[in-house]
Amino acid sequence: MRALVFDDGLKVMDAPIPERGIGQALIRVTFAGICNTDVEVTRGYFAYKGIMGHEFVGVVEDADYTDLVGRRVVGEINISCGECGTCRSGSIRHCERIRAMGINGWPGCFADYVVLPESNLHAVPDSVTDLQAVFVEPLAAAIEVMEQVHMRPTDRVAVIGDGKLGLLTAQAIHAHGHRVTLLGKHLEKLGIARKTGVDVSLVSDFAGTVDVAVDCTGNPSGMETAMSIVRPKGTIVMKSTFQKGAPMNLTPIVRNEITCIGSRCGPFPPALRLLELGGVDTRGLIEKIYPADQMARAFEKACTRGSMKVLIDFTR
Amino acid sequence: MRALVFDDGLKVMDAPIPERGIGQALIRVTFAGICNTDVEVTRGYFAYKGIMGHEFVGVVEDADYTDLVGRRVVGEINISCGECGTCRSGSIRHCERIRAMGINGWPGCFADYVVLPESNLHAVPDSVTDLQAVFVEPLAAAIEVMEQVHMRPTDRVAVIGDGKLGLLTAQAIHAHGHRVTLLGKHLEKLGIARKTGVDVSLVSDFAGTVDVAVDCTGNPSGMETAMSIVRPKGTIVMKSTFQKGAPMNLTPIVRNEITCIGSRCGPFPPALRLLELGGVDTRGLIEKIYPADQMARAFEKACTRGSMKVLIDFTR
Repeated sequence: MRALVFDDGLKVMDAPIPERGIGQALIRVTFAGICNTDVEVTRGYFAYKGIMGHEFVGVVEDADYTDLVGRRVVGEINISCGECGTCRSGSIRHCERIRAMGINGWPGCFADYVVLPESNLHAVPDSVTDLQAVFVEPLAAAIEVMEQVHMRPTDRVAVIGDGKLGLLTAQAIHAHGHRVTLLGKHLEKLGIARKTGVDVSLVSDFAGTVDVAVDCTGNPSGMETAMSIVRPKGTIVMKSTFQKGAPMNLTPIVRNEITCIGSRCGPFPPALRLLELGGVDTRGLIEKIYPADQMARAFEKACTRGSMKVLIDFTR
Repeated sequence: MRALVFDDGLKVMDAPIPERGIGQALIRVTFAGICNTDVEVTRGYFAYKGIMGHEFVGVVEDADYTDLVGRRVVGEINISCGECGTCRSGSIRHCERIRAMGINGWPGCFADYVVLPESNLHAVPDSVTDLQAVFVEPLAAAIEVMEQVHMRPTDRVAVIGDGKLGLLTAQAIHAHGHRVTLLGKHLEKLGIARKTGVDVSLVSDFAGTVDVAVDCTGNPSGMETAMSIVRPKGTIVMKSTFQKGAPMNLTPIVRNEITCIGSRCGPFPPALRLLELGGVDTRGLIEKIYPADQMARAFEKACTRGSMKVLIDFTR
């Protein structure tokens, strides 16, 4: 099968179709999405070697649970042991022996086939297209914000950063009925959000105060912006990870008694539900779709600064 | 009256006894405590000029509410307007027009007399001595941690930093029945905490994981330690403020979905109650008591790195 592999360098390879274990499913990948985390993998940030990729939609070819066979599915990326103290406490996404598809100890989905535990899979409703379903993983990460923070109907919310995650997060919060403003630096990207009904503003133009600020910028300046706009005793949700530290003074957090919450992966079922309800427009987020034979070019495109979502089409 | 004034330099002056306004009380100061924030004021961090000091115990000499006259009192340091949106939302300690005794727009208590709104005052129970009561303000800041974070009886808690605030915070948490370990770098200071029943450990020796970590170090390394010991989805309480930023990578907060809560001043009534119950030993925290005539020397001593609490005795 075709596979995009990272092993020092990035290589398109002909790899054997993986064999599934007990309780696991073999999935034929239909579409896969390239994420900034994939780009970071190729920069060596996770010391991962193997088939890349963690965002996909596909069809189950084989599984122990036969009802799954032939079903269109998306798959959660974290593979937990189910036995450690953290798993038993219910935080399975923070398993002490965690593996993550295409990132850490588990082959990814930039390939014609991928294997995942059956318990990681979620059936895609018929009304949700493949090109919507491939956004479930990042949309779940966006929804995690509301899983963690109680947003009141009276709250003013700002999402900082008009990249892919910021656009998804602002839409998801808007779809849940909250007043949200997306703050960014790119008028064309803010325009995408505005079309979905989200309030938008250039960061430099925003003079308001918010109850909840969500940093999706991916760089340390996002935290500075968040600290400058959140009210005393307000909440900052932190979505940005970076390899290197930056000079940062967290004194405003202490002085204003801000709560900061780190936020990572999220729950798939509400993401599927939101797509089913039509609450999120994913079309505007697609930069380009490449046939699988051009995976390497697709990846190159995804590495371009400011690129929107690049997809790989494994049906071609 | 005698007063310690900051006006570019630090000066002991003969100042007029302040006049109280309507709804305010004139208080004769008995003891005052010097805080690290006072040291920061003399370094120009708050652009404050005037009589310094915000930790005291004293006796009310004159007030509109005559029941107060002759009462031994401690006083909250923040003077709120009571009218702005933040005050009306209940967060009076974050008033938009806030003033703070000896720090911002209100004369302090390093003087024979101080004036405060009557609503800022709390009567000191008879069983609490002056040398205990003078610790109410920092003890309230320590207790604020439990006001903000739900500590479960099963939680493991660490306080990082064996300075004055760390020692008070560890004792306050211990007195509330929680399992707490104080992590520090100074065996003699850890010894003070150990005598009060708190578990202690050198930072370098601590290999455990905690549910809640409280950073009382006053420097950026405390946050690094906190991030390294708190469990996924755990909580970090941030007590450290500093003038300058430091290189910091908050990625572990995001990856482990940590909640960080800034924490500043706290409620006086539970602090008085804890002293009344005998739950906190303040004696071990006193570095030295100076008569008011030696205020300048007292302040010099308080500026010494690693100094414990320096008190000023205004009865002498």
